[in-house]
Amino acid sequence: MAYAAVLGYGVVGSGVFGLLRQNAALIEKRMGEPIAVKRVLDLRSFPGDSVEPFLTHDAEDIINDAEIGVVAEAMGGLNPAYEYSMRALRAGKHVVTSNKELVSVHGAELMAAAAEYNVCYLFEASVGGAIPVIQPLKHMLLTESVSQVAGILNGTTNYILTQMREHDAGFAETLKDAQDRGYAERDPSADIDGFDACRKLAILLSVCLGKYVNYSKIPTEGIAGITSDDFAFAAVSGNTIKLIARADIKGSAVEASVAPMILSKDSRLGVVGDVYNAVSFTFDAKDNILLGGRGAGKYPTAGAIVSDMAEALRRGCETPAWTRDEAALSAPDEVISTRMIRYTFTEQQKSRATVHRVFGTEDLIWANAGILGQAAFFTRPMKEREFACRINLLKSMPDIGVKSTLRLYAGR
Amino acid sequence: MAYAAVLGYGVVGSGVFGLLRQNAALIEKRMGEPIAVKRVLDLRSFPGDSVEPFLTHDAEDIINDAEIGVVAEAMGGLNPAYEYSMRALRAGKHVVTSNKELVSVHGAELMAAAAEYNVCYLFEASVGGAIPVIQPLKHMLLTESVSQVAGILNGTTNYILTQMREHDAGFAETLKDAQDRGYAERDPSADIDGFDACRKLAILLSVCLGKYVNYSKIPTEGIAGITSDDFAFAAVSGNTIKLIARADIKGSAVEASVAPMILSKDSRLGVVGDVYNAVSFTFDAKDNILLGGRGAGKYPTAGAIVSDMAEALRRGCETPAWTRDEAALSAPDEVISTRMIRYTFTEQQKSRATVHRVFGTEDLIWANAGILGQAAFFTRPMKEREFACRINLLKSMPDIGVKSTLRLYAGR
Repeated sequence: MAYAAVLGYGVVGSGVFGLLRQNAALIEKRMGEPIAVKRVLDLRSFPGDSVEPFLTHDAEDIINDAEIGVVAEAMGGLNPAYEYSMRALRAGKHVVTSNKELVSVHGAELMAAAAEYNVCYLFEASVGGAIPVIQPLKHMLLTESVSQVAGILNGTTNYILTQMREHDAGFAETLKDAQDRGYAERDPSADIDGFDACRKLAILLSVCLGKYVNYSKIPTEGIAGITSDDFAFAAVSGNTIKLIARADIKGSAVEASVAPMILSKDSRLGVVGDVYNAVSFTFDAKDNILLGGRGAGKYPTAGAIVSDMAEALRRGCETPAWTRDEAALSAPDEVISTRMIRYTFTEQQKSRATVHRVFGTEDLIWANAGILGQAAFFTRPMKEREFACRINLLKSMPDIGVKSTLRLYAGR
Repeated sequence: MAYAAVLGYGVVGSGVFGLLRQNAALIEKRMGEPIAVKRVLDLRSFPGDSVEPFLTHDAEDIINDAEIGVVAEAMGGLNPAYEYSMRALRAGKHVVTSNKELVSVHGAELMAAAAEYNVCYLFEASVGGAIPVIQPLKHMLLTESVSQVAGILNGTTNYILTQMREHDAGFAETLKDAQDRGYAERDPSADIDGFDACRKLAILLSVCLGKYVNYSKIPTEGIAGITSDDFAFAAVSGNTIKLIARADIKGSAVEASVAPMILSKDSRLGVVGDVYNAVSFTFDAKDNILLGGRGAGKYPTAGAIVSDMAEALRRGCETPAWTRDEAALSAPDEVISTRMIRYTFTEQQKSRATVHRVFGTEDLIWANAGILGQAAFFTRPMKEREFACRINLLKSMPDIGVKSTLRLYAGR
């Protein structure tokens, strides 16, 4: 018999509690022994809930209980999750988490402590919900290196963008609808500003590089500026818009970003709709793999945590996935991309002449979405530095109002 | 220092040999110790090849060498691969394989021997080439059950079907082109008749159920009968055709099949083109995941083998993924599906009246692809048993020539 504790009885924590009980017979059969929940930590009370006999308001009841072998941390936030996780590891307990904030900031310290105390610190549930990402990635990294990561890592923004495209709807109304349906938080900024996807990308990159990647150094743009007109112009050439978290790794040069990007609606990431996530890894020898599934939600996330709990109990500890050394990220100035520039004009012919003066005439592709007073064109591929010069020049022109400058996604 | 041997110096075996040497520094760094190839078994000689100093024609040189801790079996076929694998396991060596034939037939015996001798028998490379499938599946099965498996598991047929669709080409000419390009074998029957996909489905199902699934009991249809006309009629409603290997698991009732099926061209499996593979698993709690990537090829497959070699050395043995107990498969009679029936006629109106007499008029959907003398319609969903009656009746009608009866894929 293995004993477990759950920290936090919110959406994910209650899912873990429920799943461990609901699938108890299956887990016992597959593991060879049952996993019994002994304690659940939450400051709140839940009168009448089946958690009541297990509930404690005091973390010491868990940390000091030598019988508890594995702890699921589903509190979220840095504190006190960091302190409790660290103390549980030092007390010889495996710790499993869905807390991407904590993993992206203190993952290295927690994994180092786990290795020192001969236990596991696992975090499959912190990226991609139900999708097995961290474990297959670690497996393949034993013998190969990753040269490219790209994914749709946030379900809320993907739901909003999918709805905007399908219903030709604006951002604000779609966000409100997503909030009403419980797909977006009351305070949605972590999702819509791209920070959630950015943290997940930082975790994946840290695993790929074996070094700490500071998420605050990854250039991140959100989706609040996307309009139905952007979708209309993108659609002309069979494209759609997705919030893409991506990185290119060329030796020690690592270039990463999170931004809404234009990509073919029929591409592998382009067809990923609603709250689904998907992430693609390109390896040296193994070509490219795509892992997809529901990226969030109570049971998908709880399922990933419970599988990690079983894995931790079944297997021994492992070497830390990354160290405290911080990986250097390249400045984005040298990155080459094609942009779709959408603008408003008063006189079409005059505005075109202006565009040609600023961006040249070669390899420039116009898109006609039939929207009155608006035009859009795709630039030739150019460095970020060059693009910044030219777009600033275009913005200074009196007859043109630049509305958006979305990058074309060039990866797999 | 860990010592390895490779059985078979064909496409995959030479890939393993090459990758272990090429990525030696990386593997040593990630594993904490190097993996050195000590012996490569092949009956042939390779004068001038870098394998020469390692080559042996005698399996005893490997089985009796106590220094060799891990063996990569890349011989293919049942014999002598089975004997060598079994003897290597009993000599206390981990064995890793890409041999789907051997795994689908003798997997249970080999895993039982591995557990007995406290070593691993791993076979990630036997399904989906580069795609991590077996390991994530085992991980998730610790705590959950699979209710549905569906995938494109054969790269050759997927390449052929993709080419047929894109170039409006016939089967025979496309197969010849695929053979010329090295994407199809000289004797392509294992691929095009669906047996390769069937074996892989049997392996996946065996893992899901924990019991041996006899691949010869899975109803299997190949793609040789598919014509460009089938694609034309499928395209009318935004569909395409893929060779789908699928199974539904409802408690102890398991229903599986391999057949070309009609599905939306924009669906998750519908967009998987060329030699790519993808497999979807539906779990009770975790919803659904999709794993995709290059399903075959020298380096993708070799990469999967090398990762398994590292995993075997790093981790201990595990309980067998399935036992010798044979899982019962349901008879397909009760399966409900919609079919697209394509036929030739001499008089259109008369043939329609005949179809309505045989299949009724309700919920029957006609497709018009503008092909002279041909028509197609989608039936309402009906049991296989009922369909068999009606289609036999239709085939007996003098004014109609039934050309194809493709099922509509109803899964995720």
